[in-house]
Amino acid sequence: MSNILEMARAAKSASVGMAVVSTEVKNSALLAIADILQSHQEEILAANARDMAAAETDGLAGPILKRLRFDTAKLAGVIDGLRSLVNLPDPVGRQLSATELDTGLILRQVTCPIGVIGIIFEARPDALVQISSLCLKSGNTVLLKGGKEARESNRMLADLITQATVQAGLPAQWLQLLETREEVGEMLKLDDWIDLLIPRGSNAFVKYIMTNSTIPVLGHADGLCHVYVDAEADLAKACRIVVDSKAQYVSVCNAAETLLVHADIAQTFLPAAAEALRQAGVQLRGCETTRQIIDCQPATEEDWKTEYLDYILSIKVVPDLDAACRHINTYGSGHTDVIVTENAESATKFQLLVDSADVFWNCSSRFADGFRFGLGAEVGISTSKIHARGPVGLEGLVIYKWLLNGDGHIVADYASGKAHFTHRRLQ
Amino acid sequence: MSNILEMARAAKSASVGMAVVSTEVKNSALLAIADILQSHQEEILAANARDMAAAETDGLAGPILKRLRFDTAKLAGVIDGLRSLVNLPDPVGRQLSATELDTGLILRQVTCPIGVIGIIFEARPDALVQISSLCLKSGNTVLLKGGKEARESNRMLADLITQATVQAGLPAQWLQLLETREEVGEMLKLDDWIDLLIPRGSNAFVKYIMTNSTIPVLGHADGLCHVYVDAEADLAKACRIVVDSKAQYVSVCNAAETLLVHADIAQTFLPAAAEALRQAGVQLRGCETTRQIIDCQPATEEDWKTEYLDYILSIKVVPDLDAACRHINTYGSGHTDVIVTENAESATKFQLLVDSADVFWNCSSRFADGFRFGLGAEVGISTSKIHARGPVGLEGLVIYKWLLNGDGHIVADYASGKAHFTHRRLQ
Repeated sequence: MSNILEMARAAKSASVGMAVVSTEVKNSALLAIADILQSHQEEILAANARDMAAAETDGLAGPILKRLRFDTAKLAGVIDGLRSLVNLPDPVGRQLSATELDTGLILRQVTCPIGVIGIIFEARPDALVQISSLCLKSGNTVLLKGGKEARESNRMLADLITQATVQAGLPAQWLQLLETREEVGEMLKLDDWIDLLIPRGSNAFVKYIMTNSTIPVLGHADGLCHVYVDAEADLAKACRIVVDSKAQYVSVCNAAETLLVHADIAQTFLPAAAEALRQAGVQLRGCETTRQIIDCQPATEEDWKTEYLDYILSIKVVPDLDAACRHINTYGSGHTDVIVTENAESATKFQLLVDSADVFWNCSSRFADGFRFGLGAEVGISTSKIHARGPVGLEGLVIYKWLLNGDGHIVADYASGKAHFTHRRLQ
Repeated sequence: MSNILEMARAAKSASVGMAVVSTEVKNSALLAIADILQSHQEEILAANARDMAAAETDGLAGPILKRLRFDTAKLAGVIDGLRSLVNLPDPVGRQLSATELDTGLILRQVTCPIGVIGIIFEARPDALVQISSLCLKSGNTVLLKGGKEARESNRMLADLITQATVQAGLPAQWLQLLETREEVGEMLKLDDWIDLLIPRGSNAFVKYIMTNSTIPVLGHADGLCHVYVDAEADLAKACRIVVDSKAQYVSVCNAAETLLVHADIAQTFLPAAAEALRQAGVQLRGCETTRQIIDCQPATEEDWKTEYLDYILSIKVVPDLDAACRHINTYGSGHTDVIVTENAESATKFQLLVDSADVFWNCSSRFADGFRFGLGAEVGISTSKIHARGPVGLEGLVIYKWLLNGDGHIVADYASGKAHFTHRRLQ
């Protein structure tokens, strides 16, 4: 078989050594990355300029060019991020629980790296640095596949990171870069060597990965987020939150797509909200009741299922909080949903009933982000309901082992009744 | 579509209400199950007798009959288990972390049920009660598919459990029983309604589920466990542990299949171990070096990959601890592996380097079990490297939500520099 199988085997083999690298060595490796990126700034920007020139020749769209560009400001941000990651506690080797099973037989649950992480990411050179550094700090080895538009930038960054970190004491091949799209297809079958896939990109792409991989996948396809404005909402607060959730940055997964409004306040709230949203450039699509109050396009069943990622918002008037929760649990994607209300009891009920990774009260859906959450950074946002959910930082990149230490203890003695379990919780 | 889709939809719909059931109601429901099983003992044993009669007519093997039988002793054990589950803390609603993002903007990570769990289990009526009660306490709804040999027992138990728990206040349809094997195939595609599958059964069956489901799967196919006897082992202790790990109960996943012996003690240890193992009825298959020391069949490459589930043990002499770890990480199944040594440093190294769910020191591999671990019981043992690993009890049946409470906070203020994150860890 191909190159990618050999790379995955090398990553698996390196993962054993990577798991036992000390906190000190990992932190000095992170600082070494910061230093090498700083001292090679010119080469990095030159490589990125080559990518940008090719992308412009190919006529790529503005938003892609914006993500692809790696300038001094982005580089400074990435270097800041590396330094702040050093200050976060090591997620590996943390004792989660301890139980005395019997005299001299102690069970401990201790965090450890997941192993080999395969990450497929969009054409953002800064994402390469962020993702690699999170994998490094959590003791995982990583197979990276970046967007082909960023090939020159990615190569330069991966080479520099490898050079700096291997010198700092990390196993060679803890980080490897895949370059062709065909390799991704092969990667999906390598469940003996890759422990977790984190795909980032378009909905269709992530869904393809989720359906076709035998490796566990962490991530999200849709980000269909809702803001529900309750009967007891502060309407000025609600306006601010709706506009920010929808329009602060429309093309991202944590932007709101549907506004749910309690019938009791629809008459007052909708005209004010519509005005604020239109000023922010947002087109509205409303249910029948909404259209009796404000002038807008009709919303169809399809709208409730659509992640616009654009200056469009669908609006539905609901009879009560339960109906809002039902709508969200039916049409939502389990990503991020918001209630605006001054009634704490309603907020608590909403936060219990809505089955999403992030359930917010009186603040914008746009806060759903690893950096804003204080996780350092994120490798992605997960709508999965097992392992890690919402923004995934260091904690989502570790799992645990059960360590049982005895002194010749055997099960036959417990089966025969000669010995008895104490099951005394120590931690 | 069929019945199973409707059942899964009903389970999803019931899961919203199930997630908010109070600890008191859940505990009284568990006690109600204990009471109804006690008071309907005769009907339960009669239903089981019908299954046993049919199984004997069909000429099923002894071990299956043993698992299928549900007698007063097993019933008493199940009732004890229910009562002890009441005493365990509620895994739902536990705050895992809290961070102040800014003044008045508080982020909390709080545990919640996973949602709908699909469990496919072998012909063991006691397993039905154990699994349902763990799902109940963790606030999940459950679709159960038991072995067809236990049909009468399962129906009786599911009916009694439903009757007792719905009366105690749980949502109707929080527990539903599937009866045909065809339904399992359909179940694998229902990723919109089922959040997690836990298959128990033969390796081939579990592998089939893992490969063919678009729903996340928790469980294990192989249980290829090792005991490594180090150069500095107490040899008497090692003998006891090897015999118990291999022969205390051979047909289970946590029984040892391969013995690794450090070359320095092979001459002394192997003859003693061989004698003890033969007395326990175990046949041996050894590597070349082993066969120069003791008389046994040759082990081939295939043996290192084989889970015998029988009175057979393969033996390999290794030059050092690193070679033992490499063998385990290459051929093992990531289930349970044991080192026997008096050297604490070697034990720590082994526990770091071996990439398995359970890594034990100086005790039998047979301790890998939810009850023995003090988890109350287990829904299964996971060799997955995400979510839950090793014996999975209540903690493995919950995930978390991120709850963010603000007072009109919007992201635009942070993007513009008007506001700044504090990221003060509160818990």
